[in-house]
Amino acid sequence: MDEFEVETLADPDLSDPVLVEGLPGVGHVGKLAAEHLVEELDGDAVRRIYSQHFPPQVAIEDGRSELANAEFHAVQTEQGQDLLVLTGDHQAQSNRGHYLLTDRILDVAAEFGVDRAFALGGVPTGELIEEYDVLGAGTTDDVVADLEDVGVEFRDDEPAGGIVGVSGLMLGLGERRDIETACLMGETSGYLVDPKSAQAVLTVLEDLVGFEVDFGSLEDRAEEMEEVVRKIQEMEQGTPTPSDEDLRYIG
Amino acid sequence: MDEFEVETLADPDLSDPVLVEGLPGVGHVGKLAAEHLVEELDGDAVRRIYSQHFPPQVAIEDGRSELANAEFHAVQTEQGQDLLVLTGDHQAQSNRGHYLLTDRILDVAAEFGVDRAFALGGVPTGELIEEYDVLGAGTTDDVVADLEDVGVEFRDDEPAGGIVGVSGLMLGLGERRDIETACLMGETSGYLVDPKSAQAVLTVLEDLVGFEVDFGSLEDRAEEMEEVVRKIQEMEQGTPTPSDEDLRYIG
Amino acid sequence: MDEFEVETLADPDLSDPVLVEGLPGVGHVGKLAAEHLVEELDGDAVRRIYSQHFPPQVAIEDGRSELANAEFHAVQTEQGQDLLVLTGDHQAQSNRGHYLLTDRILDVAAEFGVDRAFALGGVPTGELIEEYDVLGAGTTDDVVADLEDVGVEFRDDEPAGGIVGVSGLMLGLGERRDIETACLMGETSGYLVDPKSAQAVLTVLEDLVGFEVDFGSLEDRAEEMEEVVRKIQEMEQGTPTPSDEDLRYIG
Amino acid sequence: MDEFEVETLADPDLSDPVLVEGLPGVGHVGKLAAEHLVEELDGDAVRRIYSQHFPPQVAIEDGRSELANAEFHAVQTEQGQDLLVLTGDHQAQSNRGHYLLTDRILDVAAEFGVDRAFALGGVPTGELIEEYDVLGAGTTDDVVADLEDVGVEFRDDEPAGGIVGVSGLMLGLGERRDIETACLMGETSGYLVDPKSAQAVLTVLEDLVGFEVDFGSLEDRAEEMEEVVRKIQEMEQGTPTPSDEDLRYIG
Repeated sequence: MDEFEVETLADPDLSDPVLVEGLPGVGHVGKLAAEHLVEELDGDAVRRIYSQHFPPQVAIEDGRSELANAEFHAVQTEQGQDLLVLTGDHQAQSNRGHYLLTDRILDVAAEFGVDRAFALGGVPTGELIEEYDVLGAGTTDDVVADLEDVGVEFRDDEPAGGIVGVSGLMLGLGERRDIETACLMGETSGYLVDPKSAQAVLTVLEDLVGFEVDFGSLEDRAEEMEEVVRKIQEMEQGTPTPSDEDLRYIG
Repeated sequence: MDEFEVETLADPDLSDPVLVEGLPGVGHVGKLAAEHLVEELDGDAVRRIYSQHFPPQVAIEDGRSELANAEFHAVQTEQGQDLLVLTGDHQAQSNRGHYLLTDRILDVAAEFGVDRAFALGGVPTGELIEEYDVLGAGTTDDVVADLEDVGVEFRDDEPAGGIVGVSGLMLGLGERRDIETACLMGETSGYLVDPKSAQAVLTVLEDLVGFEVDFGSLEDRAEEMEEVVRKIQEMEQGTPTPSDEDLRYIG
Repeated sequence: MDEFEVETLADPDLSDPVLVEGLPGVGHVGKLAAEHLVEELDGDAVRRIYSQHFPPQVAIEDGRSELANAEFHAVQTEQGQDLLVLTGDHQAQSNRGHYLLTDRILDVAAEFGVDRAFALGGVPTGELIEEYDVLGAGTTDDVVADLEDVGVEFRDDEPAGGIVGVSGLMLGLGERRDIETACLMGETSGYLVDPKSAQAVLTVLEDLVGFEVDFGSLEDRAEEMEEVVRKIQEMEQGTPTPSDEDLRYIG
Repeated sequence: MDEFEVETLADPDLSDPVLVEGLPGVGHVGKLAAEHLVEELDGDAVRRIYSQHFPPQVAIEDGRSELANAEFHAVQTEQGQDLLVLTGDHQAQSNRGHYLLTDRILDVAAEFGVDRAFALGGVPTGELIEEYDVLGAGTTDDVVADLEDVGVEFRDDEPAGGIVGVSGLMLGLGERRDIETACLMGETSGYLVDPKSAQAVLTVLEDLVGFEVDFGSLEDRAEEMEEVVRKIQEMEQGTPTPSDEDLRYIG
């Protein structure tokens, strides 16, 4: 296998698709959000990237192995806006690997005529979140203004240390290739997988790009996670608190 | 020396050989199993792979040094099924090294006309094992069905995190080169070298591939290991428990 | 993006410029000093180096992203001596990366006709500094003599372990390319960003190269840092000490 | 600078020189021994290897910088046996770097017509040594027999884990290039720089190769180290023990 191999799974005609990237990261916010789009909007896998820069690893499902990869999905929304959504279970495993992988991702994007991209992720706050703000960053003043219009927050020195990994390089290398790119980062505690933060990010993305997606399944996962949090808190405090679920069944 | 060098030691004619890989890993299950085949069935070394991706290390035996390598052995079974068995003391030392090494292994396999391969290994359970199940994974529905037929277990989300290292890539890269590959993973505590787990894996392999091998020497090693475990338990508990050995000599 | 990319931002005619390097390091001494030159002497950005050997990271300012880079600035001093000042937020992230990056830096220097270079940095003492000595090292007896003339200290076995990173290789690779290079290392505790040490280094550089720069803003930052130190000491001792600031307002 | 650069410093005619390698390692035994040969026998530097696989570092001596390197010295012994002695302050910094560096070392050796090589090093025992045995390993039965003849020890499973780094690869890669190579490993505690172990190794090397060297300066360093050990022991026990030095001055 070469350092990178891009496999063609399908070749649909997409009209001005917007690239949406959601690889694993803080709170798995980007990954949850991107996978939700693919599932709810019936995305079709169109390209798969294998790389020696992914871990030397296969996933197993129903006894069948699958080599580490990242996958592009063609998503056609009811509102007419096409998306090209990148999901996967891995980031690259080295500094250079991040640069090389992001360039391959942008190669595929270019092939589909992408000129606008959104990198989705989470930004850790260190505490449980009440209201899920979404922070942003972009490669042009135009896209930054667009983000401001839909309520994305911009704060001095946040995220501290900038943005690292594929999402960071989507901005850095996207700009160098004239792809207008923004990063949407949902606030999240950083301790748990966070479907609510993913929903906050997708809500912003809906407004920005112009499409709609149902959040039912993501809300279900959020409730499961809240149940987990409640149980952890109970264990710490030694006294059970009634859950919404329990209350629902009283009387 | 080049990044990889493959040395030809012998060039026997093998008829439809099955590749069996057993490099070091959890409980040294795969390594024990592969070495047992080579010893019991009088394997002949046919290829040796040296690599800059192995540790910069020589082993010493009887004062003579031997550069880190992995070795292929031609094994002819009494049942007529030829095997090509890969053994060695090292895995590659980096992510990319795993990919590159596995590709070289598959190059050699292709040279011998291999179209079916088995990667042997262990899966850690974290506790001492009573009954040694063997878990499996494969690259095609056919080979998965074959594994099921001989009692290999398939469990959801096991092994958690998939399969890593050369055994994982034997599946991942084997599939990409149209070599039907399965991984057989013997349950093992993960704390000790585990000859019983190796025997469990080989018993499954016998059924799958169609050959027989004597397990006497592996059973002897298993007894030695059990003696070790008993002594560790005694030290922890402060009171000696009679061993099978002791009991055998009573009266 | 290639392994390294050098972007041309401007192409001024510089007359025998001296290269001044100040990337991050102990006490951020070199970085503070180099940035101070660029700000006070109105440097113009002329070249920017991007590299896969920098972290996979973008910085965010006012919502806009900027890919990790190092930047050369043309600085024309009132005294007629031109400077080429290198600043940035990152060192290379691997051994080889340091070698490759330093060679690219020297390529740019060669392009501007540089034949003398100064690498600025700090040397950690492990304790708070009263008097800021500057230690030195150079590639030729001539430049070492020049440093001695302006009061640079040379001590046996200091810095212990030699000089590591880009500053070290500016000497090592500069010498191999016939660029007369010296390293100026301001003593610094090693615990804090140290503007006073940066000022000490720049004072030596002024004498060596022949230019003048105002230190007002650097002194302000030094006072801020002293205030920080005082507060830390108070917290440790539990009793507040009056600061210069407080005293200034008495009566 | 290229990945490796070999600089020619002098080009003496050496007659059948034996390569002696002594880079840093356990107890600095090999380095001390090789440097002792160069100093006592007036070696001339003939080749210098620079490499991106060494640390990105310069050493400083008398204010002058020197880029990390390894150096070959031509040594002509009174007994007529020429030596090519490799010394340096660094090993390579990665697995592959060790392989690549050792190959470059053997390239230089080949250039001088070397067909026998000795890698010098230490083997850690974990306790202070009374009698300094020297362990060995070699690439051929002949050289192993030669080592046995001069009292080198061969023990089962020692050194455990084989020999790692440049000394190990001198054997592994030397053998592949038909250079008969042996490794001489002086026993050493592993806690301290050990001139006595270096002397033990050199004594064996004298017998093997046929030359003589004075050990005065090495014995002086050994006494200094013993003084250090005595002081450490005193500090631990709280009561001073008279040193040889003290005793010498009684009365």
